[in-house]
Amino acid sequence: MLSAAVYGASGYTGAELVRLLLRHGEVRIAALSADSNAGRRMGELFGQFGGLDLPMLSTITQVDLSEVDVLFCALPHGTTQTAIADALRAKPTLKVVDLSADFRLTDPAAYARWYGHEHLAPQLQDEAVYGLTEVHRDAIRGTRLVANPGCHTTTALLPLIPLVAADAIDTDTIVVTSATGMSGAGRGAKVGMLFSEVSEGYHAYGVANHRHTSELDQELSRAAGREVLVTFTPHLVPMNRGIYATITAHGDAARMHAILSEHYADEPFVTVLRFGEVPQSRHVRGSNTTHVGVVADRVPGKALIFSTLDNLVKGASGQAVQNMNLVFGLDEGTGLRQLALFP
Amino acid sequence: MLSAAVYGASGYTGAELVRLLLRHGEVRIAALSADSNAGRRMGELFGQFGGLDLPMLSTITQVDLSEVDVLFCALPHGTTQTAIADALRAKPTLKVVDLSADFRLTDPAAYARWYGHEHLAPQLQDEAVYGLTEVHRDAIRGTRLVANPGCHTTTALLPLIPLVAADAIDTDTIVVTSATGMSGAGRGAKVGMLFSEVSEGYHAYGVANHRHTSELDQELSRAAGREVLVTFTPHLVPMNRGIYATITAHGDAARMHAILSEHYADEPFVTVLRFGEVPQSRHVRGSNTTHVGVVADRVPGKALIFSTLDNLVKGASGQAVQNMNLVFGLDEGTGLRQLALFP
Amino acid sequence: MLSAAVYGASGYTGAELVRLLLRHGEVRIAALSADSNAGRRMGELFGQFGGLDLPMLSTITQVDLSEVDVLFCALPHGTTQTAIADALRAKPTLKVVDLSADFRLTDPAAYARWYGHEHLAPQLQDEAVYGLTEVHRDAIRGTRLVANPGCHTTTALLPLIPLVAADAIDTDTIVVTSATGMSGAGRGAKVGMLFSEVSEGYHAYGVANHRHTSELDQELSRAAGREVLVTFTPHLVPMNRGIYATITAHGDAARMHAILSEHYADEPFVTVLRFGEVPQSRHVRGSNTTHVGVVADRVPGKALIFSTLDNLVKGASGQAVQNMNLVFGLDEGTGLRQLALFP
Amino acid sequence: MLSAAVYGASGYTGAELVRLLLRHGEVRIAALSADSNAGRRMGELFGQFGGLDLPMLSTITQVDLSEVDVLFCALPHGTTQTAIADALRAKPTLKVVDLSADFRLTDPAAYARWYGHEHLAPQLQDEAVYGLTEVHRDAIRGTRLVANPGCHTTTALLPLIPLVAADAIDTDTIVVTSATGMSGAGRGAKVGMLFSEVSEGYHAYGVANHRHTSELDQELSRAAGREVLVTFTPHLVPMNRGIYATITAHGDAARMHAILSEHYADEPFVTVLRFGEVPQSRHVRGSNTTHVGVVADRVPGKALIFSTLDNLVKGASGQAVQNMNLVFGLDEGTGLRQLALFP
Repeated sequence: MLSAAVYGASGYTGAELVRLLLRHGEVRIAALSADSNAGRRMGELFGQFGGLDLPMLSTITQVDLSEVDVLFCALPHGTTQTAIADALRAKPTLKVVDLSADFRLTDPAAYARWYGHEHLAPQLQDEAVYGLTEVHRDAIRGTRLVANPGCHTTTALLPLIPLVAADAIDTDTIVVTSATGMSGAGRGAKVGMLFSEVSEGYHAYGVANHRHTSELDQELSRAAGREVLVTFTPHLVPMNRGIYATITAHGDAARMHAILSEHYADEPFVTVLRFGEVPQSRHVRGSNTTHVGVVADRVPGKALIFSTLDNLVKGASGQAVQNMNLVFGLDEGTGLRQLALFP
Repeated sequence: MLSAAVYGASGYTGAELVRLLLRHGEVRIAALSADSNAGRRMGELFGQFGGLDLPMLSTITQVDLSEVDVLFCALPHGTTQTAIADALRAKPTLKVVDLSADFRLTDPAAYARWYGHEHLAPQLQDEAVYGLTEVHRDAIRGTRLVANPGCHTTTALLPLIPLVAADAIDTDTIVVTSATGMSGAGRGAKVGMLFSEVSEGYHAYGVANHRHTSELDQELSRAAGREVLVTFTPHLVPMNRGIYATITAHGDAARMHAILSEHYADEPFVTVLRFGEVPQSRHVRGSNTTHVGVVADRVPGKALIFSTLDNLVKGASGQAVQNMNLVFGLDEGTGLRQLALFP
Repeated sequence: MLSAAVYGASGYTGAELVRLLLRHGEVRIAALSADSNAGRRMGELFGQFGGLDLPMLSTITQVDLSEVDVLFCALPHGTTQTAIADALRAKPTLKVVDLSADFRLTDPAAYARWYGHEHLAPQLQDEAVYGLTEVHRDAIRGTRLVANPGCHTTTALLPLIPLVAADAIDTDTIVVTSATGMSGAGRGAKVGMLFSEVSEGYHAYGVANHRHTSELDQELSRAAGREVLVTFTPHLVPMNRGIYATITAHGDAARMHAILSEHYADEPFVTVLRFGEVPQSRHVRGSNTTHVGVVADRVPGKALIFSTLDNLVKGASGQAVQNMNLVFGLDEGTGLRQLALFP
Repeated sequence: MLSAAVYGASGYTGAELVRLLLRHGEVRIAALSADSNAGRRMGELFGQFGGLDLPMLSTITQVDLSEVDVLFCALPHGTTQTAIADALRAKPTLKVVDLSADFRLTDPAAYARWYGHEHLAPQLQDEAVYGLTEVHRDAIRGTRLVANPGCHTTTALLPLIPLVAADAIDTDTIVVTSATGMSGAGRGAKVGMLFSEVSEGYHAYGVANHRHTSELDQELSRAAGREVLVTFTPHLVPMNRGIYATITAHGDAARMHAILSEHYADEPFVTVLRFGEVPQSRHVRGSNTTHVGVVADRVPGKALIFSTLDNLVKGASGQAVQNMNLVFGLDEGTGLRQLALFP
């Protein structure tokens, strides 16, 4: 049995890690930190864990890493870099899967530009591997620090990277419109996230400056071998879970479908639908699965690509567990095979 | 007082017409048809009308048009052409506002291609005026048959037409992603519209073949003076009311904003937000207002345009009343000034 | 034209007052206070007011009451007593409609017990009239301080008071289960009100100690002429607007229905459905109407009573305007006749 | 490995059975019937099963029962009695778990009264065991026909039966107000179940005549040893999953809590919260767990009892699998240990 700690267990991605790890089978939860709730039971914060046997919430400094094999870090941006640097200094053999954005960008200049300050742990930034499992599987296996990707990013990149790599899509024409449920915004008390502000409506947010854009830039440019800039516009949907990318671009839709179908034929967590079929976010709810669809537009020479996943599972905690499985040489799907909950 | 009849009062657009006409002030409701519910009270079908004095639902043939000045036709596609041709034959001085798609396309070939059969009333098709009020105001004033536009179409065209007309947007690069609430799908009992099929999820529908596309083709080409084909992809959002277009294209965003701000400065039902502001569908819920926002993309030379309205009001019954006001020489905003209901 | 000020315009009841007053016809909005947002435009806080001409938000102390006829007070509990005492001291002829709970209880001991401290303005507490319009209409006409009732309370009392007064219901057996939408909880940023905490679920809250219980005690005991204690349990429903009371008690359901039908026959804002019909909250959404239904239980001698209204309209700001109309001798329904928005 | 067939796989309870059985570990799915969809893939009807290996949908008559150990019957009322009688005649050793209401009432007269016709398989009605697992565990073990209980009934009975059996509750005063999500209404296309008819609102339904009442009568009377009639009122909540009973009655709340805590101390699927705690339906979403809370009312001598579960899991397909486990001597929790999905 591996021993796991979760930093930042009081947020939604933290709770989702607990849900997955409790039924993983080869991991036990050794410590759960939540600084402002230290001393409370997890079941007080999340009623679904009410009757379960879990470690009491603690501060980060109270976590004894000596008995921990893997640290999941679900802290907010800002505290993460120091916390992980401290942990790896204390125990260099520790494996870390970070769910924040702090180690996703490999270029320090890009980091400073998008996040407004110099990185606090640049050596670790250099060491970290971008944890888009299906794309960087080999590098993930050999690292001690996985930078788990953003949810919008995972959704858009899974179909785009094979197409860009195969030069099957006109990268100058890519438009990504992304729609996400509310759980991706976390559990912080903000007016804009109140039920009455979110239900019965729809709107774009983070227009022209959402930070996940920087991950798209990095990974699409890496796949293309040259700079690729796409138009990316996220939207909020009144739902809890689910993220959905609608991608338009010039290219041969049938060829795109063939490439993606072949590329993902043996992947357990990416399903390419039949040509012309369109996915729905609710059909992957609660699972680690991504559904991808390709349709030919009625405008000649254009293609429509749809991709959807559960932002808390494949878009966050599920992919984190998938990466942990890789790092420790376990079967990659261990603990991740539960089916979607629909309706 | 004008005397109005509504054909197809048992659907959502029919009920919305009743809501608006009951408080219009210069119209009385003379007849309400709903063939399969003839003999029932409107309050049995729509609890909100429970205590109100309204005509009993009747069949179309029971409606006495001799006392009717304006006929709103909210029938499903297919029955409309015959019903309107019959009504205008019986009473040639009648004014008709049709909320179906039957008279929106002026080109008989386009109609046959998109709807799969020859038009049944081609002379009326020729006579009908496309009822996008702010665009075709003068022609609407002089007609007896207004073809009220589709909801997706109204949303996208209100910002696009002035930009296309001013040659301020690269028409080859326009991508329209549209998201709509469920009331636009009507009150027919279909599995895909059940609460559990629609809530807690998001998906595209009508991909590459939604019939509103044909209206975009017609009106954008008319504004441009040449054929314009755009990529248009509608999506379903778990909300009742609201439709939201996210439009990306090459062009100078600041210039676009200036054009739209000036163009709509005096329009009571189109509000252009400040440059960089993004609208939300919930802020126009229940009103006849359209909110338009323009933002410069971070990709150089690209613009993001957002447009939102209530699909049942400005996207259907409100615009129908606005058109009726025009046809009869009333103040255009009569009965349409109620504010949005938020939250 | 009456001149109105709103204290606390940045909350949902404040915004709802603005919505109603802007279309009232005999009132102009002279001042809007929101201390922590002073200096901002109302349209920045509520997008639906974006293009409208409204006073800038100010602090309370900046409001010049000399030009104000009526003050609507939508402040949180605690600040209200002082703010109203100050206002009435500055201008004793001012009329005040208070939407907080501060002046609803006439018994100082009850106030202290339910709110945990002595009342800060006991003379005003004595002077205030409980603003359940249909019940206390005459007293409201003659007062300068109306204590607008709670939303749960209005919903339950409208059917219960005539039945208690007529001795048609066994007061020892009354069980009130109430279900409310989220807008009643206000616009404060609290974790428990986030979309993901409220959607896709249902639960009771304020069990056995909700403060609206004290209003039920006061008004039911007043109607009965003896102490009446009922079991009252509120629940949260994932919807914005609407409140719904399900009331069970021993008594003759048919007689109850006859009493209520007669009692409310001429009331514009209370509709008693036919015997056996059950109301739905959505059919009163956005209107000032209350729908009441009575059904005989299958348990002999028991009745089921249902009552529903829009918590922000008849449950708060609409009833406040109704009371203002009474106080100033206007037609009671002025500005309150808009129909429900369904769907 | 057991071999299972599902009759009626195209409904929500059918799909939920497939979800659970696919990950059960000791069952393989041998046949799936859905008469009107015979010949189609399950993934066409439910996108979440898109990439999975499942039997093609067939008609009932095409199912070869010779290789089937357990038949789950999720057919609509009416077809069930004949289908099960036929199956057991064809293969008397078959075990059947019926999810319809057809075999829940043991009294033929009660059945005829509530369902409007004589039972078509009265010998089987006599043989069937009411499948409320925690209550009738021993009888379930020995039967070949389990009548899986209704969702409202399971929710209310789990707390009520131990209290009634211990004479700790005044049975004459029990009022059950139940609130359910939409998935319990099935996947039939009905206007009243459309998104726009259900979202953003709340209402009672089946008032004074819901058929689950007959199950409450039967089981509460059986537990009490005398006739018990309770007031039961179901409501619809705009959510997919979850059912929630709010129960009021005279009795000593602390004693009730002690009885329930002890009674359910070792039950894996019933968790009694601490005294005074109130459950939320979302905290059991997707799991087989029931959460029960007990609070003392502020009215002396009265208690409030809350019970919640997922109507598709413990309220239907999960309890069906739990019963199957019992019948075949498997560990009762096999395949049912996944945690709730929140948010």
